[in-house]
Amino acid sequence: MEIARPYLLFLGDVPDALAAKTAIGIVDWRKDWCLGQVRMPGCAADTGLADMSIAEGAEAGAKTFIIGAVNAGGRLPEHWVESVVEALDAGMDVASGLHVRLASVPAIKEAAERNGRQLHDVRHSSMGFATGKGTKRAGKRILAVGTDCSVGKKYTALAMDKAMNDRGYSSTFCATGQTGVFISGRGVALDAVIADFISGAAEWISPETDPDNWQIIEGQGSLFHPSFAGVTLGLLHGSQPDGFIVCHEPTRTKMRGVEAALPTIQQVIDMTIACGKLTNPDIRCVGIAVNTTALDDDEALAYLAKVGEKHGLPATDPVRYGMEAIVDKVSAEFGAP
Amino acid sequence: MEIARPYLLFLGDVPDALAAKTAIGIVDWRKDWCLGQVRMPGCAADTGLADMSIAEGAEAGAKTFIIGAVNAGGRLPEHWVESVVEALDAGMDVASGLHVRLASVPAIKEAAERNGRQLHDVRHSSMGFATGKGTKRAGKRILAVGTDCSVGKKYTALAMDKAMNDRGYSSTFCATGQTGVFISGRGVALDAVIADFISGAAEWISPETDPDNWQIIEGQGSLFHPSFAGVTLGLLHGSQPDGFIVCHEPTRTKMRGVEAALPTIQQVIDMTIACGKLTNPDIRCVGIAVNTTALDDDEALAYLAKVGEKHGLPATDPVRYGMEAIVDKVSAEFGAP
Repeated sequence: MEIARPYLLFLGDVPDALAAKTAIGIVDWRKDWCLGQVRMPGCAADTGLADMSIAEGAEAGAKTFIIGAVNAGGRLPEHWVESVVEALDAGMDVASGLHVRLASVPAIKEAAERNGRQLHDVRHSSMGFATGKGTKRAGKRILAVGTDCSVGKKYTALAMDKAMNDRGYSSTFCATGQTGVFISGRGVALDAVIADFISGAAEWISPETDPDNWQIIEGQGSLFHPSFAGVTLGLLHGSQPDGFIVCHEPTRTKMRGVEAALPTIQQVIDMTIACGKLTNPDIRCVGIAVNTTALDDDEALAYLAKVGEKHGLPATDPVRYGMEAIVDKVSAEFGAP
Repeated sequence: MEIARPYLLFLGDVPDALAAKTAIGIVDWRKDWCLGQVRMPGCAADTGLADMSIAEGAEAGAKTFIIGAVNAGGRLPEHWVESVVEALDAGMDVASGLHVRLASVPAIKEAAERNGRQLHDVRHSSMGFATGKGTKRAGKRILAVGTDCSVGKKYTALAMDKAMNDRGYSSTFCATGQTGVFISGRGVALDAVIADFISGAAEWISPETDPDNWQIIEGQGSLFHPSFAGVTLGLLHGSQPDGFIVCHEPTRTKMRGVEAALPTIQQVIDMTIACGKLTNPDIRCVGIAVNTTALDDDEALAYLAKVGEKHGLPATDPVRYGMEAIVDKVSAEFGAP
């Protein structure tokens, strides 16, 4: 799906910032694509964008009304429907990361049809993908992988994409999760695809491109997570990455949401290479991205130095210390831009 | 889904036996569950069951009308609809392995509602699964894995289930594909599940059971198939098998449907253990099942002897030489029944 820009971000009346993390993520990375935010009375989240009404957003040229907040359960609260209909009537498309399909709400379906507008449910893929082929495609690719879920793979891929572009590479961020889709304006929430088409969808997400172009692909799950490893493997095979970055959170003690031990960074490197060489025999690790939020500066730097030395790879915290070291590694391995 | 028995098998008017392979597979393994076959004029397939009309099948007590044939594209031919409606009006449920959903045909949907009957689309899962947990469950499990797709994993699992029961083990076949679901009367076509729930669905397919019970689980795809390895890995993690059987077709030269090299049997053993130990640290290979159709008897026996010796494992062709050797191995490794 391709989502028309600019965006008008709808935050509803969510009770805290966490519930608006989709909108906040979009503003963090694509502020230029956002005209403003629409908040209902009582909304406790704030992206820092200008507050505006739906009419003002339409007037300013907004093309898509993004439901950038979630309530518990991923449902669409009854009292948000009127705003969605108003946005459609004002000429915007609507995009949502909620579990519920927009078109399952009769008033929204009717308003979209009446106005000839698109409804984008990024958690649901209505696209028919081909099954993956595994054939080599032109272009170069880097995939973020992780020791676990929620260790910073999206942030790492976005930071890497930015750093590559800043250094003169031609680089594109490829989204595989719902917030990522809003940030890239294109993509698929890979975990919502039918199982048979995981690697096929990953091939669609990172299509053939100019040989000098880089695609930096958002990771999903972990090869060592018993809930989601199938998605991770299909993404790895479909992405056929030339390089991968291992993302890690050093204070975690077990895999998120299950009773399973964390793998080591070395195990993730070894398994990613063992599996990934099926579709790219030259796959290699180009760096380690560590979320050091829980460590003070001395601890963080010591940890990164230790991990980097142990694996013979650049190790950094993308938020604290940037991605320069990993771009250097890419430059050394694959050539300057 | 649980499919009520006995079955009445509908073959339509398909032009050859291959198009009725679902029905033929059901009769091969569960002839006792089938009352008869319903064929339209011109049907060139034959399961060997008694021909009967839908009214005769209903009279005999058929509970489910199984659409056991496919036409190209997996659509439901217009001229089959009348038979489906007649079966519903005669009081049967209807089950289909076609791509199209039965309820998407208005006449069928209305007839099911009118008669209060179930429509089972085994290629589509309407079930809400939990995500996989990876927690150890009671019971013992064997999974069929393969060097490729379509190398005999379903046949091997069914033959192993039968051989285990014949030897006095308490064993159940667990289906993961559409024909398997009809044969077991329960299960899910795993490739049709939403990607996030592959391992969760596999856990549902092979649930906790008595510690002495064995579940013999139909395999899907291959860890080395670039289209489907994600499904294979989620199935492996969710199945948490104690033992696995590697299925192989010795004359194949490349992976089915794609330009990819075949792995060796040893590579499949190693990768299955490397990945499978995440949810069962004691996972081990208990045998090799080879489809030797293309070899004469001398060649087949020589090939099996060579492969068995090379890997230190029993190697057999389940069709030609039975599963006794692999049951012996299970008995040696895990104890007699």
